[in-house]
Amino acid sequence: MNPDPISLSLGSLTTVGVIVVIALIAIAMALRFRAEVLRARTGTEAMDEVAGAVQEGAAAYLRRQLRTLGVFAVIAFLLLLLLPTHGAEGTEGMLLRGARSVAFLVGAAFSGLIGYLGMWLAVRANVRVAAAAHETGRDPAMLIAVRTGACVGMATIGFGLLGAGAVVLLFRGNAALVLEGFGFGAAMVAMFMRVGGGIFTKAADVGADLVGKVEQNIPEDDPRNAATIADNVGDNVGDCAGMAADLFESYAVTLVAALILGRAALGEAGMVFPLIVPAIGVITALIGIYLTTPKKGQSALTTIRRSFLLSAIVSAVLCSIAAFVHLPASFSALGIEDASAAIDDPRIVAAGAVVIGIVLGIAILYLTGYYTSTEDRPVRQVAATSRTGAATVVLSGFSLGLESAVFTALVIAAAVFGAFLLGGAGVTGLFAIALAGCGLLTTVGVIVAMDTFGPVTDNAQGIAEMSGDVDGEGAQVLTELDAVGNTTKAITKGIAIATAVLAATALFGSYTDAIRDVLGDRYQDFLAQSVVFSPQTLVGVIIGAAVVFLFSGLAISAVGRAAGAVVYEVRRQFRDIAGIMEGTAKPEYGKVVDIVTRDSLRELATPGLLAVAAPIAVGFGLGAPALAGYLAGAIASGVLMAILLANSGGAWDNAKKIVEDGHHGGKGSAAHEATIIGDTVGDPFKDTAGPSINPLIKVMNLVAVLIAPAVVGMSALSGQADPLRYAIAAVAILAIAVAVTISIRRGVVLETEDDLEAVDAQGS
Amino acid sequence: MNPDPISLSLGSLTTVGVIVVIALIAIAMALRFRAEVLRARTGTEAMDEVAGAVQEGAAAYLRRQLRTLGVFAVIAFLLLLLLPTHGAEGTEGMLLRGARSVAFLVGAAFSGLIGYLGMWLAVRANVRVAAAAHETGRDPAMLIAVRTGACVGMATIGFGLLGAGAVVLLFRGNAALVLEGFGFGAAMVAMFMRVGGGIFTKAADVGADLVGKVEQNIPEDDPRNAATIADNVGDNVGDCAGMAADLFESYAVTLVAALILGRAALGEAGMVFPLIVPAIGVITALIGIYLTTPKKGQSALTTIRRSFLLSAIVSAVLCSIAAFVHLPASFSALGIEDASAAIDDPRIVAAGAVVIGIVLGIAILYLTGYYTSTEDRPVRQVAATSRTGAATVVLSGFSLGLESAVFTALVIAAAVFGAFLLGGAGVTGLFAIALAGCGLLTTVGVIVAMDTFGPVTDNAQGIAEMSGDVDGEGAQVLTELDAVGNTTKAITKGIAIATAVLAATALFGSYTDAIRDVLGDRYQDFLAQSVVFSPQTLVGVIIGAAVVFLFSGLAISAVGRAAGAVVYEVRRQFRDIAGIMEGTAKPEYGKVVDIVTRDSLRELATPGLLAVAAPIAVGFGLGAPALAGYLAGAIASGVLMAILLANSGGAWDNAKKIVEDGHHGGKGSAAHEATIIGDTVGDPFKDTAGPSINPLIKVMNLVAVLIAPAVVGMSALSGQADPLRYAIAAVAILAIAVAVTISIRRGVVLETEDDLEAVDAQGS
Repeated sequence: MNPDPISLSLGSLTTVGVIVVIALIAIAMALRFRAEVLRARTGTEAMDEVAGAVQEGAAAYLRRQLRTLGVFAVIAFLLLLLLPTHGAEGTEGMLLRGARSVAFLVGAAFSGLIGYLGMWLAVRANVRVAAAAHETGRDPAMLIAVRTGACVGMATIGFGLLGAGAVVLLFRGNAALVLEGFGFGAAMVAMFMRVGGGIFTKAADVGADLVGKVEQNIPEDDPRNAATIADNVGDNVGDCAGMAADLFESYAVTLVAALILGRAALGEAGMVFPLIVPAIGVITALIGIYLTTPKKGQSALTTIRRSFLLSAIVSAVLCSIAAFVHLPASFSALGIEDASAAIDDPRIVAAGAVVIGIVLGIAILYLTGYYTSTEDRPVRQVAATSRTGAATVVLSGFSLGLESAVFTALVIAAAVFGAFLLGGAGVTGLFAIALAGCGLLTTVGVIVAMDTFGPVTDNAQGIAEMSGDVDGEGAQVLTELDAVGNTTKAITKGIAIATAVLAATALFGSYTDAIRDVLGDRYQDFLAQSVVFSPQTLVGVIIGAAVVFLFSGLAISAVGRAAGAVVYEVRRQFRDIAGIMEGTAKPEYGKVVDIVTRDSLRELATPGLLAVAAPIAVGFGLGAPALAGYLAGAIASGVLMAILLANSGGAWDNAKKIVEDGHHGGKGSAAHEATIIGDTVGDPFKDTAGPSINPLIKVMNLVAVLIAPAVVGMSALSGQADPLRYAIAAVAILAIAVAVTISIRRGVVLETEDDLEAVDAQGS
Repeated sequence: MNPDPISLSLGSLTTVGVIVVIALIAIAMALRFRAEVLRARTGTEAMDEVAGAVQEGAAAYLRRQLRTLGVFAVIAFLLLLLLPTHGAEGTEGMLLRGARSVAFLVGAAFSGLIGYLGMWLAVRANVRVAAAAHETGRDPAMLIAVRTGACVGMATIGFGLLGAGAVVLLFRGNAALVLEGFGFGAAMVAMFMRVGGGIFTKAADVGADLVGKVEQNIPEDDPRNAATIADNVGDNVGDCAGMAADLFESYAVTLVAALILGRAALGEAGMVFPLIVPAIGVITALIGIYLTTPKKGQSALTTIRRSFLLSAIVSAVLCSIAAFVHLPASFSALGIEDASAAIDDPRIVAAGAVVIGIVLGIAILYLTGYYTSTEDRPVRQVAATSRTGAATVVLSGFSLGLESAVFTALVIAAAVFGAFLLGGAGVTGLFAIALAGCGLLTTVGVIVAMDTFGPVTDNAQGIAEMSGDVDGEGAQVLTELDAVGNTTKAITKGIAIATAVLAATALFGSYTDAIRDVLGDRYQDFLAQSVVFSPQTLVGVIIGAAVVFLFSGLAISAVGRAAGAVVYEVRRQFRDIAGIMEGTAKPEYGKVVDIVTRDSLRELATPGLLAVAAPIAVGFGLGAPALAGYLAGAIASGVLMAILLANSGGAWDNAKKIVEDGHHGGKGSAAHEATIIGDTVGDPFKDTAGPSINPLIKVMNLVAVLIAPAVVGMSALSGQADPLRYAIAAVAILAIAVAVTISIRRGVVLETEDDLEAVDAQGS
């Protein structure tokens, strides 16, 4: 590990140059798809009015959120400048620190930009989808939704590849350190956008449902409900902007891990091949996108599955060819004599690892589809339990989530283990795991395209409902597409969390590398203390798993609190504005948007702080072995919790759709009410807490990598007390404690004066 | 570690002899409390009739369950005979294997016996509590409930201490290996009783509620509901028998861990001191029990807290004195020159560790009390969210559970880390952790007494309701006691899972010890591969965490399935037996009991098999380092999941009680309905899946310890393929796959012909 600085050969530089060009082509294609979407006809005047309000609200929220994040980014930028690097000293070290901090800002900016662009287009696409469903039927409507996704997908992979490629071109042998900054920036912004957007979307959704469907008994998206515009804004800032930033981050961090380990495992070749794989992904994503042409009489899910499968197979073939062309036939030809790989042929190891990643993507696609689609047995059974009431719906959906989480986690674990068997116990094994991640990345283009589908059709349905201009077949089309959207959203989350496991496992290599550089001979002590059964490591595992639980709990209760505020505002409007119920007066949509904006920005601070401060507290407080255990615990409980939340939420949503489709009593029946309760429980599960866990894991991982040199530099292993070390840990713990206390003290859902009095009176 | 065989000195033997006498005294006290309970007056004729039916049903279930377990026990007995031991060869090894297998049977028998006795007395106590509440008021009623608990508590600790003490007396230096068998037997039977009893109690409860409260709108425990007797039987076989077996197992396994490590850390003294601590616990438990005298105007929870606290403080003082009397002033006086402890004074280390355990017990008591009692803010807030419907109740209770799980897990982790800091990185550190577990054990007597309280008062309320002979103040008394029971039950689960973490962490010492014995020089390779960031270990962590999720999911869905059968039977009786609703005809209670008995025995097979087979699959399939990671993952996700499930369930139950007490609209309001849904969701959380996780972790841990010599004996580390090894793993995986598939295929809740048709029709 840690070979001499590498100056890339001309051949390699040319290859990377070509890859950068491919990245630019992807961005150009994104612009092309964007134009295609914008060319489509917008809807009726009523539709345009609704869409305009949504556009305005979404843009306002995102601008405020990005401004808030800007402050965080500047602080992180300065802290990064202070953190020591490893493997480079003196002026070079200073320069690298500066470059790493700048790369952090670039990663953060790209992540925010992708999110903003995704949202910008989605709010324009949804009215066009609604119009197309109304005027020309399912297939053209689906095409616009798919093209919107294609634009976001191409932009995601284009910018990711561009950023990583540019860093390699500029910094070559030193790219690893700079890439850590790039990945951290991308992950941090993605996490905040996931959490903030997730709270926004579900606070509005749950709030709207609680007052609308439950109290006033008016349908979803009814224009008399003051929270409907906020609900539609939420779909865009959460599911679109948050998701795009999240997948960009997955892309960036996985590439970062692969490039860092590639350099250590294979030298120069290892810094180029990980870029070739996603570059091939750009091409196959385009194939996949063009293949997603809706066919008459074929369900939308089948269409999506088919194009995913085809582009995955093409990727596997092309990547294997690339491995055989680009890599030599033996490790010794690369100047590596002690490779740990099972087979002394880097071509087979690399091709095998990439194929493992691609197969993993396909497995997740089918597993998640099976557990969340309306067509398969599990969700149909959850729908059937609605006959015995809401409790059984909640229980059956929850145990479905638990089971599906286990199977998905086992598939991911099998991929890690398979890549590890190929690459062996050393750095080659970690590189193989990172390459499996790159294989998974080749599917991201299609995945983003599929996922954007969800919120766009959801919004289209909302606009149609609110404008009152779509009915009959058009409405039926939008409902069907919406149900497919629920499944594609769950699949995306499964793939995203898989990238987190692969990238995080591989990034452990960077973590130990940084520690080895600082500790030198004492590295053996670190290893001895890091065995999984050492009590300090085990305590780290428990704390890491606990932080994921706490993060999830905070995110879910934040939605409850923000939704409570929505409930009160909508109730107030029903009471104070005469004529809303009769349709003679309009509710003040903007007020609700403002409230949700304010609350979600306030609520995202605690989970965000927890993600950054918890590894600092564990690392400086309990030492580097405990921090390693912490990351392992967070990965294990993170992957399970993320899929549990995503799949149970998706299943509840689609169980409701099954009942609404006329089964078990249909709309308005007791069974329908039971599934609405299930769906509401699932809302913050699947759209707030669940999807935030992927960037959470990566943020914590990268924080650990970044602080590792400082942690071990401060006698973390010698057992000597270092006041500064404990002071840092104490500050981190204090910050978490204060933030968590403030969040919890805010109370759950009901917090007007009246209610607090009621709650207090009852206790005395 | 692994000193020469120790022949205990006469002084030590005398001490152990005295401890065995104390154990016998505890058993005698149990008999005395039993007599005291049985002396109390039984109720009216109507009450006796109900109680008789409950007694009959409970005894019939438990007999059938123990017979089923007998078959499992014989199989495990034979397999244990085949498994190689470590550290003893030839004839001695053969003899030890035989003794270990016999100890397994004894541990299993004790566990089953305690459960049976606990149930036997509880079904006789509840009618007496009901009668006392009716005739003489709260305090005498509470006293009978407390005395019932006292009997079970004394029996639990008496038999636990007797078993461990007898093994030490008989096997002395070789006690460790035999104790592994004893602990495994106790844990296996406890797990089955927790799972089976948990499925029984909640299938009956949920089934009764779904038809009674939800469909027919008749109150809980209404005699017209055919499932009420089954519901009451369930409280006894689940909460009483299961809980008693579970705590006995916690007691036994913690002692086993402490004795094994004590021998390794301190030699002879280390095999006696861990027995002294729980012997002191017998005395302080008696103090605590006699202190639990209800006082007028003081809430029952306050009484319980006070007596717990006092007995804990007395334990801490007496144990510290014992440490200073029994242990020498320095490790070298024990012949140990390389102790890793922070302080070279075994007295301080031992006393400190025990006190850490006792403080941990107090911390869990207060934390759990805060999160689940009707008097504190969290549950009151969950109750308040009932105003916005069932979904917010479920969400707020779930996030309460997540938060409380995190804080409890952090407290437990802090105790592990504190003991580790005292004892250092070597075996002394592990021994200190085990001693903290022993400290926690000193509170078990009071804990069992507190916990038995719950089901007894719950049943008393049921009997009162069904007989119709208690009303007014008597009913109010029983309701208040029932709410306190919900909190004490949650506390017990918190303490039980804490013992699991402490024992499991300490037992890692046995695991590595067994591996070291077999591997010799190659032990370093094992250590190098067991670092937490090695991919194979990390994969183990993920699988371990996943198995806890799968186990929970299976337990929860088993309840759903069994409850479905109850719903159909009760509906059938309402339909087929004329006059039930009018009270002119009696439902066939026995039929429902039979159905639930059959279903729970069928359903417990899969989770039980999973617990035993999963570590075998991981160990033989992926090797010893992965198995170590597996255990760490299971511990981390197990502690969080167990507390999440226990506390959210307890909080929902008590939120319902708050509403029933007249808040937020009171009985019959929409808020009440919302909390009933929350409570029903919580039922399988808190009484089936949650409490089974504690014995699950211990079973998996002991399986790992037992198979470790075989796993590493079969070239697990050399990387050579051993066909037998993979064949064993394949059989284990196949067994799990078949069992899980059968369970899942059974379908959720609704599985009559009609419903399946409906479900299938909808898919086509």
